[in-house]
Amino acid sequence: MGRPRVAILSGDRIASAAMDLVDATGGFTIPELARRLKVSPSSLYNHVSGREQIIELLREKAMSEVELPEPTGPWIDVVAAIMRSYRRSYARYPRLIPLLTAYPVASEQATGMYNALARTLTEAGFGADDTLRIITLIDSFVLGSALDAAAPATPWGTSPDVGPELAAALDTGAAKADRAEDAFEFGLAVLLRGLNTL
Amino acid sequence: MGRPRVAILSGDRIASAAMDLVDATGGFTIPELARRLKVSPSSLYNHVSGREQIIELLREKAMSEVELPEPTGPWIDVVAAIMRSYRRSYARYPRLIPLLTAYPVASEQATGMYNALARTLTEAGFGADDTLRIITLIDSFVLGSALDAAAPATPWGTSPDVGPELAAALDTGAAKADRAEDAFEFGLAVLLRGLNTL
Repeated sequence: MGRPRVAILSGDRIASAAMDLVDATGGFTIPELARRLKVSPSSLYNHVSGREQIIELLREKAMSEVELPEPTGPWIDVVAAIMRSYRRSYARYPRLIPLLTAYPVASEQATGMYNALARTLTEAGFGADDTLRIITLIDSFVLGSALDAAAPATPWGTSPDVGPELAAALDTGAAKADRAEDAFEFGLAVLLRGLNTL
Repeated sequence: MGRPRVAILSGDRIASAAMDLVDATGGFTIPELARRLKVSPSSLYNHVSGREQIIELLREKAMSEVELPEPTGPWIDVVAAIMRSYRRSYARYPRLIPLLTAYPVASEQATGMYNALARTLTEAGFGADDTLRIITLIDSFVLGSALDAAAPATPWGTSPDVGPELAAALDTGAAKADRAEDAFEFGLAVLLRGLNTL
């Protein structure tokens, strides 16, 4: 059996091509996607129902390295483990983030993570309203941190406008290879301490 | 004096066209920008030095509604006021966010805000290393919250995978017209409480 010379169109191949376009340009359109895959737009519609389904395939890719910990032990440790893995997984695709937040979450894998967070927070004693607020806080901090993880090693330039206090702060980061990781762990601890004293 | 029939090329017109492209497609290239402005790429280079300067012009637009409060009163109130205004200003341009975080900050207005944060935190007694970490936490939370402010009214779809705890949490948000604002104020309070007990 020889290999087919042209890869067969599939949801996975469509999602990979869409991800390449988002990485390179910040977005994708159906005609661009069809051109990249060397097929007609109507062939794409044989495999996906449209833009929203492609967005969900991209969300699944962004979530693919999220690991859910065993839901045992203190709630704070379970939440921290989910947040670390969520940030790591999304930091691979920073330009995808505003596309994903612009569409309602529908993919099974994403819903699974939000279920785990909601269950853990409910069991910890938070009401349904605070559970939604905390999930939103987790999302905002993790997605912002994923963008920071993809930022340049020195995210602030050396402008003559930088004042002495900012210069002193920036100096402490310039020496750290793991600046973004260090700041994420600090922020995670601040946030969990703030939640623990609700 | 008649009005010129063709608007004169300027940094501001270039930035507006770049912003329209980012809003529509997630990014911009110099050739796309030239086409949109109906000029040659080389005419663009008479006004801007290149892509990085255009990014800084976009950063200035995103920051244009950031208001710095009087640096008097408790540090926590100064930081909260900056964060509220920073989020509001950026929520107007969600798709711009990953472009801005991918380039080092150079614009005067952005540096002015970071100077105000660094001065406030230093005067509150935080060391230079924690000042950088707190500024990074503020950035991550504010940019993530700006993305959430631009999200659909119901950011989670109704999938059969949604478990009972998540469903109960989502129900509390469905009724709130100000879901994103409410979650931001909650997160801001959690974060400041966590910082206040450092």
